[in-house]
Amino acid sequence: MNERPLILISNDDGYQAKGINCLVEMLRPIADILVCAPDSARSGFSCAFSATTPLRLIKRHEEQGLQVWSSNGTPTDCVKLALSQLLNGRKPDMVIGGINHGDNASVNTHYSGTMGVVQEGCMKYIPSVAFSLCDYREDANFDPMRPYVVKITKQVLEEGLPKGVCLNVNFPKITCYKGVRVCRMSAGSWNNEITVCHHPRGYDYYWMVGHYNNDEPEATDTDRWALDHGYVSIMPTRIDVTDYDTLGLLQGLNEDIKG
Amino acid sequence: MNERPLILISNDDGYQAKGINCLVEMLRPIADILVCAPDSARSGFSCAFSATTPLRLIKRHEEQGLQVWSSNGTPTDCVKLALSQLLNGRKPDMVIGGINHGDNASVNTHYSGTMGVVQEGCMKYIPSVAFSLCDYREDANFDPMRPYVVKITKQVLEEGLPKGVCLNVNFPKITCYKGVRVCRMSAGSWNNEITVCHHPRGYDYYWMVGHYNNDEPEATDTDRWALDHGYVSIMPTRIDVTDYDTLGLLQGLNEDIKG
Repeated sequence: MNERPLILISNDDGYQAKGINCLVEMLRPIADILVCAPDSARSGFSCAFSATTPLRLIKRHEEQGLQVWSSNGTPTDCVKLALSQLLNGRKPDMVIGGINHGDNASVNTHYSGTMGVVQEGCMKYIPSVAFSLCDYREDANFDPMRPYVVKITKQVLEEGLPKGVCLNVNFPKITCYKGVRVCRMSAGSWNNEITVCHHPRGYDYYWMVGHYNNDEPEATDTDRWALDHGYVSIMPTRIDVTDYDTLGLLQGLNEDIKG
Repeated sequence: MNERPLILISNDDGYQAKGINCLVEMLRPIADILVCAPDSARSGFSCAFSATTPLRLIKRHEEQGLQVWSSNGTPTDCVKLALSQLLNGRKPDMVIGGINHGDNASVNTHYSGTMGVVQEGCMKYIPSVAFSLCDYREDANFDPMRPYVVKITKQVLEEGLPKGVCLNVNFPKITCYKGVRVCRMSAGSWNNEITVCHHPRGYDYYWMVGHYNNDEPEATDTDRWALDHGYVSIMPTRIDVTDYDTLGLLQGLNEDIKG
């Protein structure tokens, strides 16, 4: 008897966001779904976990093949809590983050709570994929993503992913994609990130904003290029962040410091 | 006229922690120092930044060659705020995170706020190094680290680091190190991470704890091996987390989904 696959879904926009609910609706035909997601938005939370906060879990919804839980923790906490407390020891067949409201390509990979979900799944040796749409609006249109999300999910369910590798999948803000590009992470940087404001009580405070700059606009093999040219970008992402080239270059340090 | 080098220091234990103050004291002879660190502990904050919180900066101390500021933000926020608001456009010669009270080797790289500091510096194209001691205690003994911290810092000030590469340096909890190992990140995983407690009002809550397992105990070229055998570990860390091996393997997805 074949059991239906089980997918654990989380995000950083909160369990009530349109993106995660669209994702659940897209994937229910092919898998049982456990949602465990933050109780409100946690954008920019990266792989943060709660070392000093007592965490809670609240069941929000249950029907055949679907459970929805929320937590007061981070996206990473949600994955850890679900794996430990909500699955009676069963390991999900996949972990999926998203669908995120907003771009998680290039260096945003490092800041993204959606990627926090997926890196946590990958560190638990579960095939894990993040889906993000380059549209921050609450009512963003996720419908055009459906065939791509379903196809990528089915393929990963069937074939898995290499150990220690997860996928960061981003969709441009258009309704008809030119296709898919499997690509590398673009070098980029955030500029003018701080806006200074003046509080009525007489002190300055700061909002984190900024604009992104593509630091290699000529390259055509990057996620940024793919998105800017109407393609869905798939960036395979490593957990092992060792820079092996530098490893060789720095061997001199062993002797230098020991001496 | 030679200007003294300028080093921006932050951490995730807060500006009052012993580790960051020991680091400042070690490095003042060789550089001017700007500290901008969280106003209290932010362990496990990874590369999180504050998308929705208004941030503040408070000057805590100033003397010749040293300024100390605190912020209500994350470690990453502190770096962004300092670079934007506290340097009058000057770019620091280095960004240093630490000295962290506790181990940031292996997969802890992904959770560490100290590494958040250093990855932020690296993403701003500034040579960046994280120092951590495998001792969580508030009054941990950082003295044995001094010659190593000074030597690594001097070398990075003089020679820089490759673009997009920062260093994750960890020290074992001993007083006499066997030497230094430049090494790769160990594969490892956290287990039994959740402890369930019962609140007097009748509900369950959860603490994030757990123990670390070395998933490749036989390997002798990893940071975990180095630390377990009395060596200081230096792990060169990439910002580009693309898995280039998988990039080739997945090219089939381009056709599959487009068709």
